[in-house]
Amino acid sequence: MGEFFSAIPEIKYEGKNSTNPFAFKYYDKDRKIMGKTMEEHLPFAMAWWHNLGANGVDMFGQGTADKSFGQAPGTMEHAKAKVDAGFEFMKKLGIKYFCFHDIDLVPEADDINETNRRLDEISDYILEKMKGTDIKCLWGTANMFGNPRYMNGAGSTNSADVYCFAAAQVKKALDITVKLGGRGYVFWGGREGYEFLLNTDMKFEQENIANLMHMAVDYGRSIGFKGDFYIEPKPKEPMKHQYDFDAATAIGFLRQYGLDKDFKMNIEANHATLAQHTFEHELRVSAINGMLGSIDANQGDPLLGWDTDEFPCNVYDATLAMYEVLKSGGLTGGFNFDSKNRRPSYTYEDMFHAFILGMDTFALGLIKAAELIEDGRIDNFVKEKYSSFQEGIGKKIRDKSTTLQECSDYALKMKKPELPGSGRQEYLEAVLNNVLFK
Amino acid sequence: MGEFFSAIPEIKYEGKNSTNPFAFKYYDKDRKIMGKTMEEHLPFAMAWWHNLGANGVDMFGQGTADKSFGQAPGTMEHAKAKVDAGFEFMKKLGIKYFCFHDIDLVPEADDINETNRRLDEISDYILEKMKGTDIKCLWGTANMFGNPRYMNGAGSTNSADVYCFAAAQVKKALDITVKLGGRGYVFWGGREGYEFLLNTDMKFEQENIANLMHMAVDYGRSIGFKGDFYIEPKPKEPMKHQYDFDAATAIGFLRQYGLDKDFKMNIEANHATLAQHTFEHELRVSAINGMLGSIDANQGDPLLGWDTDEFPCNVYDATLAMYEVLKSGGLTGGFNFDSKNRRPSYTYEDMFHAFILGMDTFALGLIKAAELIEDGRIDNFVKEKYSSFQEGIGKKIRDKSTTLQECSDYALKMKKPELPGSGRQEYLEAVLNNVLFK
Amino acid sequence: MGEFFSAIPEIKYEGKNSTNPFAFKYYDKDRKIMGKTMEEHLPFAMAWWHNLGANGVDMFGQGTADKSFGQAPGTMEHAKAKVDAGFEFMKKLGIKYFCFHDIDLVPEADDINETNRRLDEISDYILEKMKGTDIKCLWGTANMFGNPRYMNGAGSTNSADVYCFAAAQVKKALDITVKLGGRGYVFWGGREGYEFLLNTDMKFEQENIANLMHMAVDYGRSIGFKGDFYIEPKPKEPMKHQYDFDAATAIGFLRQYGLDKDFKMNIEANHATLAQHTFEHELRVSAINGMLGSIDANQGDPLLGWDTDEFPCNVYDATLAMYEVLKSGGLTGGFNFDSKNRRPSYTYEDMFHAFILGMDTFALGLIKAAELIEDGRIDNFVKEKYSSFQEGIGKKIRDKSTTLQECSDYALKMKKPELPGSGRQEYLEAVLNNVLFK
Amino acid sequence: MGEFFSAIPEIKYEGKNSTNPFAFKYYDKDRKIMGKTMEEHLPFAMAWWHNLGANGVDMFGQGTADKSFGQAPGTMEHAKAKVDAGFEFMKKLGIKYFCFHDIDLVPEADDINETNRRLDEISDYILEKMKGTDIKCLWGTANMFGNPRYMNGAGSTNSADVYCFAAAQVKKALDITVKLGGRGYVFWGGREGYEFLLNTDMKFEQENIANLMHMAVDYGRSIGFKGDFYIEPKPKEPMKHQYDFDAATAIGFLRQYGLDKDFKMNIEANHATLAQHTFEHELRVSAINGMLGSIDANQGDPLLGWDTDEFPCNVYDATLAMYEVLKSGGLTGGFNFDSKNRRPSYTYEDMFHAFILGMDTFALGLIKAAELIEDGRIDNFVKEKYSSFQEGIGKKIRDKSTTLQECSDYALKMKKPELPGSGRQEYLEAVLNNVLFK
Repeated sequence: MGEFFSAIPEIKYEGKNSTNPFAFKYYDKDRKIMGKTMEEHLPFAMAWWHNLGANGVDMFGQGTADKSFGQAPGTMEHAKAKVDAGFEFMKKLGIKYFCFHDIDLVPEADDINETNRRLDEISDYILEKMKGTDIKCLWGTANMFGNPRYMNGAGSTNSADVYCFAAAQVKKALDITVKLGGRGYVFWGGREGYEFLLNTDMKFEQENIANLMHMAVDYGRSIGFKGDFYIEPKPKEPMKHQYDFDAATAIGFLRQYGLDKDFKMNIEANHATLAQHTFEHELRVSAINGMLGSIDANQGDPLLGWDTDEFPCNVYDATLAMYEVLKSGGLTGGFNFDSKNRRPSYTYEDMFHAFILGMDTFALGLIKAAELIEDGRIDNFVKEKYSSFQEGIGKKIRDKSTTLQECSDYALKMKKPELPGSGRQEYLEAVLNNVLFK
Repeated sequence: MGEFFSAIPEIKYEGKNSTNPFAFKYYDKDRKIMGKTMEEHLPFAMAWWHNLGANGVDMFGQGTADKSFGQAPGTMEHAKAKVDAGFEFMKKLGIKYFCFHDIDLVPEADDINETNRRLDEISDYILEKMKGTDIKCLWGTANMFGNPRYMNGAGSTNSADVYCFAAAQVKKALDITVKLGGRGYVFWGGREGYEFLLNTDMKFEQENIANLMHMAVDYGRSIGFKGDFYIEPKPKEPMKHQYDFDAATAIGFLRQYGLDKDFKMNIEANHATLAQHTFEHELRVSAINGMLGSIDANQGDPLLGWDTDEFPCNVYDATLAMYEVLKSGGLTGGFNFDSKNRRPSYTYEDMFHAFILGMDTFALGLIKAAELIEDGRIDNFVKEKYSSFQEGIGKKIRDKSTTLQECSDYALKMKKPELPGSGRQEYLEAVLNNVLFK
Repeated sequence: MGEFFSAIPEIKYEGKNSTNPFAFKYYDKDRKIMGKTMEEHLPFAMAWWHNLGANGVDMFGQGTADKSFGQAPGTMEHAKAKVDAGFEFMKKLGIKYFCFHDIDLVPEADDINETNRRLDEISDYILEKMKGTDIKCLWGTANMFGNPRYMNGAGSTNSADVYCFAAAQVKKALDITVKLGGRGYVFWGGREGYEFLLNTDMKFEQENIANLMHMAVDYGRSIGFKGDFYIEPKPKEPMKHQYDFDAATAIGFLRQYGLDKDFKMNIEANHATLAQHTFEHELRVSAINGMLGSIDANQGDPLLGWDTDEFPCNVYDATLAMYEVLKSGGLTGGFNFDSKNRRPSYTYEDMFHAFILGMDTFALGLIKAAELIEDGRIDNFVKEKYSSFQEGIGKKIRDKSTTLQECSDYALKMKKPELPGSGRQEYLEAVLNNVLFK
Repeated sequence: MGEFFSAIPEIKYEGKNSTNPFAFKYYDKDRKIMGKTMEEHLPFAMAWWHNLGANGVDMFGQGTADKSFGQAPGTMEHAKAKVDAGFEFMKKLGIKYFCFHDIDLVPEADDINETNRRLDEISDYILEKMKGTDIKCLWGTANMFGNPRYMNGAGSTNSADVYCFAAAQVKKALDITVKLGGRGYVFWGGREGYEFLLNTDMKFEQENIANLMHMAVDYGRSIGFKGDFYIEPKPKEPMKHQYDFDAATAIGFLRQYGLDKDFKMNIEANHATLAQHTFEHELRVSAINGMLGSIDANQGDPLLGWDTDEFPCNVYDATLAMYEVLKSGGLTGGFNFDSKNRRPSYTYEDMFHAFILGMDTFALGLIKAAELIEDGRIDNFVKEKYSSFQEGIGKKIRDKSTTLQECSDYALKMKKPELPGSGRQEYLEAVLNNVLFK
């Protein structure tokens, strides 16, 4: 098994004026930011599916990139070549984590027993490969949306048989995740929703999904899985409506069904956009509910209505995201590049350029978010803004020791309030620019 | 006090081939549908603000319609003329309910004590007017978004003083609602959200909103209010993001803060559109959570990104909405036309045409929804679709008496499942058309 | 070669109360509407790609439907089986037209010479099949978006070699279209646009596209093609931006480059939605520019941001579309069902249900549009609305025989104008409902 | 007449590390960039309406800011106070241009003759004020969307009388623009479109608009106006559909009606967003058609569906816009801040913060765009990308000296082309970040 990327030089930090197209400009793993190294702040992960599998195919055209790695797709030889290529790729970039779906690792067989056997084989191979490296599994998941059997959902399917196949895949994916030392386990409900409300029993379906998650938690804990389970919200696509629409919806669901102790959110930037939210909004909603777990680090196009899964390049977005992450005390998970090269970027070089872009963007976001916090102007403004609730009637409101009558009496006595102070949005936006471009 | 609409004939049902532009074609209050009269199924309400106040002003132009009713706007004489006009309007159309914000009823004074005095005066006047009619209040609410003091929210404001003014308005609006025999009380959080996440403490704000709602419930129950409280979800506009984004979000919030026993949803069709949902989706989500309370019967434009508050005219939408309403056993509230005439429809005649359009659309929706249920093809299809969960492993899944391991074993033994049966969407759409256009 | 759809009965009109799920409820080919038969008004076409090729694959899952028709995909045997199945399908439904891309007909070979040979073979086979039937080709086109060579466009590609392959495909597709007696030839520019503006020379690309179209017109006329060329506008997807954004843009392009004598529009409903227009808007824009040529009869979901290509089921949309078609004097092209079954509707039965749905929807739209015109209330309103331009200063404005000064003088003398009469939108919407649901 | 903004210090460039909240960080008027000063590159303008008129009113709430400037709104005293405040404001910030609608300058009277008299009076006052300063008019326009008479449009109205009032306003606004030495004259067609297609004669309306523009050109030229006329595209809002949907549509319209010699585009960033385009896209489309005239420098929110008219703060957008401007050789017009403070930013300080934000953002965009061009990596990539068209068959294609047959023969001989080289999007995005954040 030779090298796949021998033409690509080792990737190192050479500073932002480096002219080497294969050097980091901003990501310097050992640089200390607010008491931790960049590498500790930013546990980057490679998504097995996109980086080792996606070839640029879209609904209107065939793939443009060759991801065969010298073997015939659909074979275990190809599955192993992907492992080899993946580890070589991660090493060259200094990436320490990977994420996988079961059938990213091996081609799915017609008989689930054979698929499971292949998963045993490939996970042995990966374990062997991990030895002597510090590469680890960030999280695993089961693909319960690609196979035709899931056309009406997995946990939400109308077929009890199909539901059991979903359960079987979750079980095996949990087994493999634990075997590979994974930090977390993700549920992305790509088919958990509906195409057509009139032929759908929404309550029935949601109860069944919750039940599947409960069984997964019970099983996972029984085999020693101590990590977080994650829901990855997405509003739609492929389905017309998916039940995990956004963080607020998913968190409500988890609380309703008593799953909130074991689950957190895996927030994907592009999914936020599709739900008409900003990335930082979804992070904030998760964080204030104690459920900010992990991040799918990509970028959507706010003018397009589908999942473009672009590599993150917008430093505003990365800064605002890292601001939320730093304020919430960091992730229990990591930053998974659920991102794919644009279709016309089809060469090996492009794979590296894309990861360098993404890692540098988040590194710069981290640097700038820390500077924003250290600058203090924004945080101080916010603190002052709400200060009227620290004493008097404000404090009683916060303490829940007042009544509508008392508050009303207070107002009637005052007759007319002062306006709240200016929100100073434009000034604070200038502060943000000043920190970003100083 | 003369008549305002004397030129408009009495509005009656004359059958769908009527050529009278001021006759109902479909709404026949005494017609029985599934055991109840149309009037019982469809407690229509007039929105005080739009019908008696909106004059067609928009962000780019002045009003086109004259809603002075012969008096100078901003005076109590005008407030009373609106009552007169409103009751005359409702009587002509046979509308039995109205909805109001506090400052729809009277012009807001600089001193809240004076505003409250005016509210006492006008509510006496309305009570007097109600005598001898069967016109009732559907729900009341406080406008906590128009006055500059609410620029940063009401329950979510950063000013404790402003918060108390919100509390005072809620208290008074509850008083008036109870005085007028209102069925419900609504919170629409038009400024409960944020413009700029960086200067916002989202958790603080949401806790304060919940606290205000708790105080409102306590106060309301203390003065004998037995109706439902409602949240009316809307994702955005006027704010960039509003906390009550959609039904799922609002329901999650109510459960999180222990408000779910006293609150239900008031679902507005146009707000559903803005949240990228269908109207029927929001109704279904509310219904399966036992929270379908009341409806703001209007229509948005899926190609426009703001609240157009059009009178409902789409019979598909009305049918699918009434299907959800009938399936859930009906509303505790009613159908409030939170709708306004298009700006170039500025005459008194247009006000009547618009209500006839809206009432007829929902009447036809009711007729068609009942026919759809009686037809049975759709419901039978759905029943059959999920039948595999009625026995065997399916039943164990529903009973929560199985495990991931057992489900997995079942699948492994099966090796490969059958595909679920076809979803038959196109056929069912044809059934829908066939019922609609038979 | 046996039958594929022998289980499906012959499809006939049985009236709208028919209980046969395989009967037309509204489409009655011989029924006369405004002087022409339904069949003459509605030249329906089967889209070779969707009906004989699409298997339900999407970006997140494999196909669910089996479209092998008993042969191995990728072979000429399969290509011929598709012809057999297609003709059997069209005959059962009474569809008289089909539309094709070159590589819908045959699998593309590595060498374009071999692809062309296959096209000769299959077109001979189709011609043979057409004998004794009245099935004809509506239009042909070349697929210049699927092959990786077109990753940066066809006419807009940066590679002169690739441009020549596009030219070669257009030439051959024109040859085949003429051979099969096609009425039209379509350009859908799925890759004619950009992913990333910074690496794009927009002017260069648009000039090259125009040049390709000119060469196509010259060649087409030289081989006796007398039909229309069509641009099919679509704003985006697969590309971030496509040059033929909407009808107005495409028409502007055709005029700019002197192509407006040979080209018309092929308007697709779903593409209109993606451009934030209604279907009827795009039809109107085309019609008033003399460029309403043909229609891709499908339906999008206004809440989804990608091409869903649903079978049309909304009778409002179909009625408003047919109103535009009738008003403009009919199409030179036809109604091509560029529509596919939903992924969970994967059986042969569903293919028939979908076409029955689509044909019935347009049949009902035709009936209702004709009734709307015969009703006359809307048309009379419009005529009256603009009547002030029939005499006096209005007439001078229409005749271009006045000046800004004269108009200004007229206004200054008048001092203040009357308001225009009410637009009566709500009343007219009630008229529409009244005609639809009478 | 005293000072209004005496509390605000003189605004100067103090370098990007300045801690003075009222200093420019990036805008340094005398700094030379690519051979011209910043001030020459960036002819900034104050929009009379937003800066001197907008008080934060929105569809759901009253204004929050006081723009009375010590006088009663609706009086000529107030109109003059606005002039005083405006000139003081522009001087403090070093802004050299302003833009106006007729009724921004004076309150509209009931009789158009009185309105015109007021316009004469205020323009005398402004002219006096301009003396001894280098403040000039960038462009003027007539507000033909606010008054109820324009409910159905101005040029597109159904009332010949109303049309004449539009003509009278255009005439007077042109008179005033010429009197004040304005560089340009703008048509923004806020009501030139439709609410309801069924009651609209689109062709009639578009012809009348074109006719009004022709009369305006003729009149303007007759009184010595040598500047550009501009169309400002916007897709919708207030109307459901506006005819000047985007640049491509407006340019097509101008060509169709022979107006393209006198008109250019005034591109507004927020309007681009509403049309689902990027700002830079609209600039590019205008530029390659020789119609990039002027810019409305603001920013929309891609997640909101209405005109938010935010002050520009995104440096990516400003850089990409300035890249287009520099590449096209600069504007004939200028950069008009058609921007308003957020509603909670209601103080005089906020007005200054907002302009400092906007001017600094464009200054930084200019700096970065120039650096991007000087860096050369992107431009060189693009040049190389299309190089295959510089010789051989590529050159013949460019020269229009080949045929479909010849291109096809070329392809058939080649059999299969090489793929175009990688588009390198991710690499080029990294280059952009590297230039922005170096």
